[in-house]
Amino acid sequence: MSERTEIASLGEFGLIEHLTKNIELQNASSIVGVGDDGAVIDHFGKQTVISTDLLIENVHFDLIYTPLKHLGYKSVIVNLSDIYAMNATPSQITLSLGISNRFSVEALDEFYEGVYAACERYGVDLVGGDTTSSQKGFIISVTAIGEVSPDKYVKRSTAKKGDLLCVSGTLGAAYIGLLFLEREKKIYLESPAVQPDLEEESYVIGKLLKPEARKDIIEFFDQQNIMPTSMMDISDGLSSEILHICKDSGLGCVIYEEKIPIAEEMKNAAYKFKIDPTACALSGGEDYELLFTLSQNDYDKITLNEGISVIGYMTDEAAGTTIITKNGNKHPITAQGWNHLK
Amino acid sequence: MSERTEIASLGEFGLIEHLTKNIELQNASSIVGVGDDGAVIDHFGKQTVISTDLLIENVHFDLIYTPLKHLGYKSVIVNLSDIYAMNATPSQITLSLGISNRFSVEALDEFYEGVYAACERYGVDLVGGDTTSSQKGFIISVTAIGEVSPDKYVKRSTAKKGDLLCVSGTLGAAYIGLLFLEREKKIYLESPAVQPDLEEESYVIGKLLKPEARKDIIEFFDQQNIMPTSMMDISDGLSSEILHICKDSGLGCVIYEEKIPIAEEMKNAAYKFKIDPTACALSGGEDYELLFTLSQNDYDKITLNEGISVIGYMTDEAAGTTIITKNGNKHPITAQGWNHLK
Repeated sequence: MSERTEIASLGEFGLIEHLTKNIELQNASSIVGVGDDGAVIDHFGKQTVISTDLLIENVHFDLIYTPLKHLGYKSVIVNLSDIYAMNATPSQITLSLGISNRFSVEALDEFYEGVYAACERYGVDLVGGDTTSSQKGFIISVTAIGEVSPDKYVKRSTAKKGDLLCVSGTLGAAYIGLLFLEREKKIYLESPAVQPDLEEESYVIGKLLKPEARKDIIEFFDQQNIMPTSMMDISDGLSSEILHICKDSGLGCVIYEEKIPIAEEMKNAAYKFKIDPTACALSGGEDYELLFTLSQNDYDKITLNEGISVIGYMTDEAAGTTIITKNGNKHPITAQGWNHLK
Repeated sequence: MSERTEIASLGEFGLIEHLTKNIELQNASSIVGVGDDGAVIDHFGKQTVISTDLLIENVHFDLIYTPLKHLGYKSVIVNLSDIYAMNATPSQITLSLGISNRFSVEALDEFYEGVYAACERYGVDLVGGDTTSSQKGFIISVTAIGEVSPDKYVKRSTAKKGDLLCVSGTLGAAYIGLLFLEREKKIYLESPAVQPDLEEESYVIGKLLKPEARKDIIEFFDQQNIMPTSMMDISDGLSSEILHICKDSGLGCVIYEEKIPIAEEMKNAAYKFKIDPTACALSGGEDYELLFTLSQNDYDKITLNEGISVIGYMTDEAAGTTIITKNGNKHPITAQGWNHLK
């Protein structure tokens, strides 16, 4: 970067003004935006959905290999994904940042470029937040606000026995992307002169650094008049999320390894690490795909959408949670999702 | 504390379940609470107000002299104060925490005790959040959600020339409380055997550690059919907030030093530090009182409430922002509020 403007030179209020001066509210529901004690939202008879996430440097992201623009984009996406997972449409976000003085105004501008790119793509307004200093590390807190017609929201706890268990997209790539970047970081720290060669892995690295939220799936449900019986987004890994839906719904399930959607690029990348692609898909995390259950009556409708895979079905709780491997073996599903607290 | 349960022994989901298992939703508007991708809220035709704050250890609070229960309480209060400052009624909060492994489950229980005490007192529901690890320091992010009848919300930017400028309660005590605690901390770090003697200062220390939000003032407005013409809460100091209202409304103002409400206990405490009580009231911060403007027609109504002081009036922008001292001298109002970014 050629320029470096110190944050202190703008002051807290000057900084907020600088970062938010170009906001144009897109949604009729955004009545009052940034610049007051609170934002005012009117969903005009619809229900309001709220979700929030806290992202902490060196716990959730590593600035050595995460471009700030991508980080801004992803910070928004992970929250929008939660709103879609309620079968709702995101309409606003608030963004709070804790920043240390090693950040320049230009660095924050980059971060906000990503934030605004995500807002524009998904049609949401940034309506508030808080900017403060942090003694150490970059801290990001996003709250996403969405709307849903009364009783159209979809919880985790309402799957029914016999329902189809489905996922959107493909799984496991973000985790392999992380392994590549962690390996390159290690090499770089040992020998800074070595240039990383990640071009071949742009697919999996892209899945990690610049995920998208499945707006299209929610729109597809709406067009096809499909109401999932339960839904959540896949952030901690497929196994972990399947167990949530089973536990919260008081059911068991059977899934088939061969039905788990895996991209060719991810498979090739996993083999370079001598890792089983299925294990990545089950336990990797950070996919931001949707996991949902559907009445069998809706089966014909979802075959219209190539981005949806049926991976199994819901059973009685007593039947447990089972994965049937490609060889026909049965194993219990276990959660090995990311657990930041361990 | 006699017991210490490691957070890792519960795991992330076990911890969240432990901390939230006793929640009983109080508001009809809380449709779906903790435990899903998002919370669902229905304000039944009212507008939704959102405010958010990020609190970082050693920037916003010092655990050496802040009991965790008080910190939990205050984390909620500072956000509710923003909702009241929009002339709205808070109904829900979300709470995200970043915690290091030096915290035990018992310590978090204490923090949540304070959170739940504030929720109960102000009638709000905890409906969601995020719990994650932090490498260093305790990080608290609260989003408060409230409701307001359409067009009853009050912004900062809508004061009118000739309006009365008013504040609730008394100002400056929290700042003096902070000075006492910082002094005792220094003494303690130098000679740990010395017992702090803070009993005489319980008023100012209480104002810092356990503030309240002015629910009663908003209820008074509603009962008396008063619509403030502009409003905000006082978190950065009276001067700073007055300048916000003036700038955002495109006006100037005159205030009178003798009208600024100061408690006797605060005055006595300030003299011990050889500090001018008025300076504390103007620049102290963390008061969480309300600053608002009113049409002169409402003057008779507010004399009914001893908790409200008229401190001045709004003028043309060209007249500037002026404080008239007890001696009759005129000075421009300058913001010396807390600026965490400097």
